[in-house]
Amino acid sequence: MPVVTIKLAGNLTREQKKQIAAEVSDTLERVAQKPKRATYITFEELPREDWAVGGQLLDEK
Amino acid sequence: MPVVTIKLAGNLTREQKKQIAAEVSDTLERVAQKPKRATYITFEELPREDWAVGGQLLDEK
Amino acid sequence: MPVVTIKLAGNLTREQKKQIAAEVSDTLERVAQKPKRATYITFEELPREDWAVGGQLLDEK
Amino acid sequence: MPVVTIKLAGNLTREQKKQIAAEVSDTLERVAQKPKRATYITFEELPREDWAVGGQLLDEK
Amino acid sequence: MPVVTIKLAGNLTREQKKQIAAEVSDTLERVAQKPKRATYITFEELPREDWAVGGQLLDEK
Amino acid sequence: MPVVTIKLAGNLTREQKKQIAAEVSDTLERVAQKPKRATYITFEELPREDWAVGGQLLDEK
Repeated sequence: MPVVTIKLAGNLTREQKKQIAAEVSDTLERVAQKPKRATYITFEELPREDWAVGGQLLDEK
Repeated sequence: MPVVTIKLAGNLTREQKKQIAAEVSDTLERVAQKPKRATYITFEELPREDWAVGGQLLDEK
Repeated sequence: MPVVTIKLAGNLTREQKKQIAAEVSDTLERVAQKPKRATYITFEELPREDWAVGGQLLDEK
Repeated sequence: MPVVTIKLAGNLTREQKKQIAAEVSDTLERVAQKPKRATYITFEELPREDWAVGGQLLDEK
Repeated sequence: MPVVTIKLAGNLTREQKKQIAAEVSDTLERVAQKPKRATYITFEELPREDWAVGGQLLDEK
Repeated sequence: MPVVTIKLAGNLTREQKKQIAAEVSDTLERVAQKPKRATYITFEELPREDWAVGGQLLDEK
């Protein structure tokens, strides 16, 4: 019963989320025998103002 | 000083959050002797588009 | 399908975890109509060296 | 620059982690144009005593 | 390659985030030799309705 | 009442944690007026086998 969190700056389209959810749960089933119905995947999309790399907010770069 | 995160798809009403916060911090105090004033509880409500089970976004089901 | 994370410094006994898991999933079912079978609860016990409050590690206090 | 967290009860072998990391970062690159070098993936393996479903610890079931 | 999450109730200004990101990544480089370019820092600002202390939502206090 | 999580591959010494905790809570007090006594900081040190970048586990590189 894996819980997968995918956190990123910016946005994904609904189609991208759909495709990623399908592929990641397939990977976990195929590689680690985790049944898809027990896998929860959540997406957390952050504004670029709320994510920093190299000491700078992404929207400063 | 527990930190409790309650993450779910969809929304809770303010009354539900209030009741859940009261009960969960009571449980931690009664069962594990964690003083209520030191317990932080946070709610994270995700759109159903951002949560997948069984390889499908909840709003596809 | 809530995912609840309970993070704390130090350890809980197995009996405490059992009791907390039962009560918290009961609260979520009763207050927010979340079926128990869909609620995941995880415990994360941290050494006191890995938790700071007031700018000090807990084991310095 | 996604950060992916894969949390599960029990253990994965090193080979399984290797395969999952390769596939998940490939998915994110192919579907969402996230360059692999910017994707961080972490695994968190929890003892079955620290994960509850349906109000019961997994090792009680 | 540290991943730092700063979660708080209420809001920070863009200037505060900028300053905090700069200082925290500087701390990690200076104290722990983690190169700034590899440090990700994310901010998660929660409404006061979604954060409880002492069993009460912050906006009840 | 910020909750700060610092997750990294490998280990920090106790002295490094102590210094980082002091500086980060000082930053949050000075820049964002968050009183130190309300700031929780946790460290999560992961084995290099449990962290992947660029699709590869860190210990493969």
